[in-house]
Amino acid sequence: MLENVNFAISEIKARGIDVFDDAQKLFEASVDHTRYSVLPSAVVVVKKAEEVGDVLKIANKFDIGVSVRGSGTGCAGGCVAIDKGIVLDVSKLNKIEIDPVERIATVGAGAITIDVDKQANKFGLFYAPDPSSHKYCSIGGNIACNAGGLRALKYGVTRDNVVSLKAYTGSGEFVNCALPLKKFSVGLNLRDVFVGSEGLLGVIVEAKLKLLPVPETRKTLIAFFDGDLNAFAGIVKLMRSSLAPCILEFMDTDTISCVRKRFPELSIAEGKSVLLIEFDGSKNEVEQSSQLCANLFSEIRVSKSEEEREILWKIRRASSPSMYELGDSKISQDIVLPISALEEFFAYYKNLGKEMGLACPVFGHSGDGNYHIHFMYNASVPNSQELARKAMDLSIKKTIALGGAISGEHGIGFLKSKYMPLQHSEIELDLMRGIKKVFDPKNILNRDKVLFQNSSEIDALKPLKNIHLPWD
Amino acid sequence: MLENVNFAISEIKARGIDVFDDAQKLFEASVDHTRYSVLPSAVVVVKKAEEVGDVLKIANKFDIGVSVRGSGTGCAGGCVAIDKGIVLDVSKLNKIEIDPVERIATVGAGAITIDVDKQANKFGLFYAPDPSSHKYCSIGGNIACNAGGLRALKYGVTRDNVVSLKAYTGSGEFVNCALPLKKFSVGLNLRDVFVGSEGLLGVIVEAKLKLLPVPETRKTLIAFFDGDLNAFAGIVKLMRSSLAPCILEFMDTDTISCVRKRFPELSIAEGKSVLLIEFDGSKNEVEQSSQLCANLFSEIRVSKSEEEREILWKIRRASSPSMYELGDSKISQDIVLPISALEEFFAYYKNLGKEMGLACPVFGHSGDGNYHIHFMYNASVPNSQELARKAMDLSIKKTIALGGAISGEHGIGFLKSKYMPLQHSEIELDLMRGIKKVFDPKNILNRDKVLFQNSSEIDALKPLKNIHLPWD
Repeated sequence: MLENVNFAISEIKARGIDVFDDAQKLFEASVDHTRYSVLPSAVVVVKKAEEVGDVLKIANKFDIGVSVRGSGTGCAGGCVAIDKGIVLDVSKLNKIEIDPVERIATVGAGAITIDVDKQANKFGLFYAPDPSSHKYCSIGGNIACNAGGLRALKYGVTRDNVVSLKAYTGSGEFVNCALPLKKFSVGLNLRDVFVGSEGLLGVIVEAKLKLLPVPETRKTLIAFFDGDLNAFAGIVKLMRSSLAPCILEFMDTDTISCVRKRFPELSIAEGKSVLLIEFDGSKNEVEQSSQLCANLFSEIRVSKSEEEREILWKIRRASSPSMYELGDSKISQDIVLPISALEEFFAYYKNLGKEMGLACPVFGHSGDGNYHIHFMYNASVPNSQELARKAMDLSIKKTIALGGAISGEHGIGFLKSKYMPLQHSEIELDLMRGIKKVFDPKNILNRDKVLFQNSSEIDALKPLKNIHLPWD
Repeated sequence: MLENVNFAISEIKARGIDVFDDAQKLFEASVDHTRYSVLPSAVVVVKKAEEVGDVLKIANKFDIGVSVRGSGTGCAGGCVAIDKGIVLDVSKLNKIEIDPVERIATVGAGAITIDVDKQANKFGLFYAPDPSSHKYCSIGGNIACNAGGLRALKYGVTRDNVVSLKAYTGSGEFVNCALPLKKFSVGLNLRDVFVGSEGLLGVIVEAKLKLLPVPETRKTLIAFFDGDLNAFAGIVKLMRSSLAPCILEFMDTDTISCVRKRFPELSIAEGKSVLLIEFDGSKNEVEQSSQLCANLFSEIRVSKSEEEREILWKIRRASSPSMYELGDSKISQDIVLPISALEEFFAYYKNLGKEMGLACPVFGHSGDGNYHIHFMYNASVPNSQELARKAMDLSIKKTIALGGAISGEHGIGFLKSKYMPLQHSEIELDLMRGIKKVFDPKNILNRDKVLFQNSSEIDALKPLKNIHLPWD
């Protein structure tokens, strides 16, 4: 392959497209949030959309695998070139234009999510999807993984907020996926085939995104429960009420116990689990909803000012970092569970942790059943990583057995592709592979990921320690 | 083909599946809202989902085309068996189950849209998509066409409200398209390939639909404008404000002029066009939004009671039937336009009507740019239908030239397939045909529709007069 790569790189350079192959650039483009690193053959950085088509056509000609990279914040290895092919970096395609009348943002694939929101804010509008990495992640990756976020309960996931796309297929052909119109029932919907396709079908270069008027105000409430089971009952109570919060977050007793240690000033009692609830809208509406909600639960704090809101959010934001109280390393997943399966799943999961001697804190977006589960370990303890992997493997299998999903918003990448045959029937996988072939007949894009496995090599990979990522 | 059909029907009957071929049943299954009628070879009425798989496998074996039919309210001929094959009637798959905790409805493809809403209402929930045929149309058809409706502005189209699907592919294989979970990022999304696919890929047998808490109240406003241009300026004004109405409907001066004649008691002044605006939510929120909105426009009526709301809605509901003041027949389309193209498009369209001597009233869902345009004619006037067809053809081409779409919610069926090469590039159409082949390799489903044309036969077809459809 090496010879072919050199030919391909020469042709790409001959088109005036930037190619890098120095050690620093190769390393930077080798890794995502998973910290798994595989050095690519070269990093191609496009400055305009048409260059994407050129690169893909050349890759097809020389049969070189291409992995697309935006900000590299992915949680499943989706942008890691495990085939050692080329990394195609689209981060410079980052324009943002706002149309305040159509309430649509036109953005390049490399635009940073929070920047889209900020630009929209200038016109009294906002972009709803807010993955927790929104300060760093880019729209192309959000669309590729169908990213969610906290507000998905009210505003939907990325898919629900994409109006149309411009993309190049795996064979390098330009396609419009729908038009920038709010309704479009004209043939098979190429847009929604692309959303969530994790770079298997083509490379998104531009997206038109829905914008909404900024709500007048928001109010945050935190309800405390004795133990996790009571919080689950609280979720049911809330969902059976007439309330429609924009955010409903759960933090289990283990997570809250870590948060307590970090923030004694919050004076949270021992053994508590938490639901964080937020309403947005007009002042009157938010006031009314908050009061109704406060009456539902016996132990609840309601933010009375923006400062108090910030304090309540501190608890949620501390969830992820404070877990390191329980171990210096973690394995995490973003599973989705039906509400009816919560009790059974978490009994199993907590019991697993107990049996294996691993702490297993959990928090998540309860409104849409999306939980971030973790097994913590100390890297210096022999076999602890293997034990944590084993526990996570069993948890994933239990998730599927209970009608849940192995990913709500992170995608499959190469890390979870081995579970695809458990989640989907062979017929469903064949249909997916068939669609892949229609868009990318030579299998240029994201080889060995999502629908395909290269398990021997992948199993040998280990996440890097001691590297600092921009969002750490 | 006839011999093959007989073999196929025998095998279907042998499975205990109901088959009808009497003249009455064949005629009833031959026509949809377009009034184009082509008699099928037989009508197969399934009583349970698995029978769909059986029928499709038998159709594949004998190479018989299958057109799927729910309530037959389609506006593009999608369920009409123009290949004279079998009609597969799924209307008996009409169960409806509500899960008030997950806020999900589980419904058969044949369930009537308004019935889903009514069942949900019992739990304080509602199903948002409300196509104007919601008393008659079925969910399977709503999903197949990605139906919209009035509330789409706030709540999205059918696609935004489908959680997961169960379906049989064209080759008769069962597939789960996503799971009944609010988030699902696990491989290529088969669900969204199915939604809007107009029966090309498979037959949907069951859907899980999102439900939302019933808003506490709603308020309707009607703003009057001198001429259509001022109403367009009103749309821009509203979209630039901080308001987020759930409904924003436009009726042009020609439509309103017909409504005036029918309802003199509404005392509408001459030469007026109208925007109907509705807000829903908590009482406080709706009150606040209505007041802000009322201040935007100089001539506005605000409903102060449910009775007054009904009176304002009378104007909108009268739009379609009262058009017959202008001719005994009509040709209509549901185009989508960017707000920036409204002025140019409607100048062209109205001028066309003037030149050809055809009345051309228009109303539509302005919030998402979806307009129902019409050319009225009197069937007894020689060549008038041809003239109206010509005018519509030019209007559709103008729509595309201005960046609009030829269908917002009705789909393509067989009536609009000839425009597909104007709306999509050859590459885009090839991708769509490729996807079709993955799901339905023998091209059993909806032959000669959407992506394929059989123009000589289609051009010879004329809509039937003097038939009464259940929703007339």
